[in-house]
Amino acid sequence: MSTLNIAIQGVPGSFHHQVALAKFGENTEILSFNQFEPVAKSVATGEADFAVMAIENSIAGAIFPNYELLDRYELTVRDEYYLPIAHQLMALPGQKIEDIKEVRSHPMALLQCKAFFAEHPSIELKDDIDTAAVSKQIATHQWKGIGAIASTIAADIYGLEILAKDIQTVKNNFTRFIILQKQKEILDFIPNKASIKVTLKNEKGILAKLLTLMSENGLDLSKIQSVPVIQKPWEYSFFMDTVFEDHQVFKQTMEEIQERFGEVKIFGEYISRK
Amino acid sequence: MSTLNIAIQGVPGSFHHQVALAKFGENTEILSFNQFEPVAKSVATGEADFAVMAIENSIAGAIFPNYELLDRYELTVRDEYYLPIAHQLMALPGQKIEDIKEVRSHPMALLQCKAFFAEHPSIELKDDIDTAAVSKQIATHQWKGIGAIASTIAADIYGLEILAKDIQTVKNNFTRFIILQKQKEILDFIPNKASIKVTLKNEKGILAKLLTLMSENGLDLSKIQSVPVIQKPWEYSFFMDTVFEDHQVFKQTMEEIQERFGEVKIFGEYISRK
Repeated sequence: MSTLNIAIQGVPGSFHHQVALAKFGENTEILSFNQFEPVAKSVATGEADFAVMAIENSIAGAIFPNYELLDRYELTVRDEYYLPIAHQLMALPGQKIEDIKEVRSHPMALLQCKAFFAEHPSIELKDDIDTAAVSKQIATHQWKGIGAIASTIAADIYGLEILAKDIQTVKNNFTRFIILQKQKEILDFIPNKASIKVTLKNEKGILAKLLTLMSENGLDLSKIQSVPVIQKPWEYSFFMDTVFEDHQVFKQTMEEIQERFGEVKIFGEYISRK
Repeated sequence: MSTLNIAIQGVPGSFHHQVALAKFGENTEILSFNQFEPVAKSVATGEADFAVMAIENSIAGAIFPNYELLDRYELTVRDEYYLPIAHQLMALPGQKIEDIKEVRSHPMALLQCKAFFAEHPSIELKDDIDTAAVSKQIATHQWKGIGAIASTIAADIYGLEILAKDIQTVKNNFTRFIILQKQKEILDFIPNKASIKVTLKNEKGILAKLLTLMSENGLDLSKIQSVPVIQKPWEYSFFMDTVFEDHQVFKQTMEEIQERFGEVKIFGEYISRK
């Protein structure tokens, strides 16, 4: 069997890399991109076999532009993965926390460590694009006095020392990732979760009717987000995740929605990992 | 009357600055922050009288972390503003588009100009934190061969030349901003729109019932987004915007939701500007 190519956003040591390792093991080729768009594209063109993409965070909610990519590149959601988020404060070896004047990280990571930094008001916080990339820069440039917030793997890869462990404010925080693939394969399992998009007709109360039908048919909603349809100011699409017990009933409900409510697009059917 | 202090995220010339000018005129003090968190905080502490904050984009959907800030800092939504998004490609004066090797901007701005850059494949795209900040850096460091995507105002402020006008792919794209204030003031107008958060009891089909009630009472939904309640994995909150004709009916409906469905928090009542 040839090695799988897995597309991720971020440098080695990033959270995406962690998920790729957990899901596909060590024996893969990691294709590392610095934006999400080329990640999606690499799967669409066949350059990558799979992509790992963050899609939802328990603090930040949906990472919306990634839904848009999934939709536009016609990708299939093959699986999901919940990664517990643990933030480590790290710096060049030999420094103490008092030596750190500045911490650079992704705004979301900084937000998630708010309480910790409130206790260290002399540390200046700066936004950066990536968490692990800052670790890499500190190591490359041998920057003293600058800290990164990233994963234990990033500390290992770039030879940094962890100054404070698990500094995230909320302890059971997680990020939800989806595993993307190009083809819709024939499923060798019975799914109990699906990601869909429904573009509703412009009728009063139609969303309430749609959700009533889904609820009556045993389709629980684990996520909903409205999206204005571009250039049609009064129409809305809804990205939804739904969990169900009976796959046949799910399929029948999707057909009924297509007939009565509007256009249905199924991004993928998979097994709930929560 | 003393000058109003208006908090914005971004440097002068940013889209937030544009909205602040449009809404409050020239005779204000702009407090410029590089993250959204201190923007919200400055209103909560009274340092700023108002804040201007992007909350929704017709491509990106909801800018979720800003809802979280609005919620956490107990701010009031006083008004909304729709800014048509127009992206200009700019660089140091005297350069041609063929001279530009690299364009740096916010990932969202790059995404919004996708079709333009597909026609200029030799230009490398790089993510940056801010749009206008790149214009400022180009001017400060006199960087040749590097372009920014920002507003006409940014080109004026930093003395850059526009190489290509209105390069956004979708022409009627807009960003929705909200105007934030600390106090809930007594309204001198009758509102027809409100931003609310409802934290629902964990009951099967409860969202469908809630939306049915709202629809029957003439409360149209212009936005809905589910948010997992942190540390309560099976509970959800929903951020919603609703448009209505009768303010009294709106208030009665909120009371009924509070009694029957769960906790209601009203972020603000205002006039729809769409």
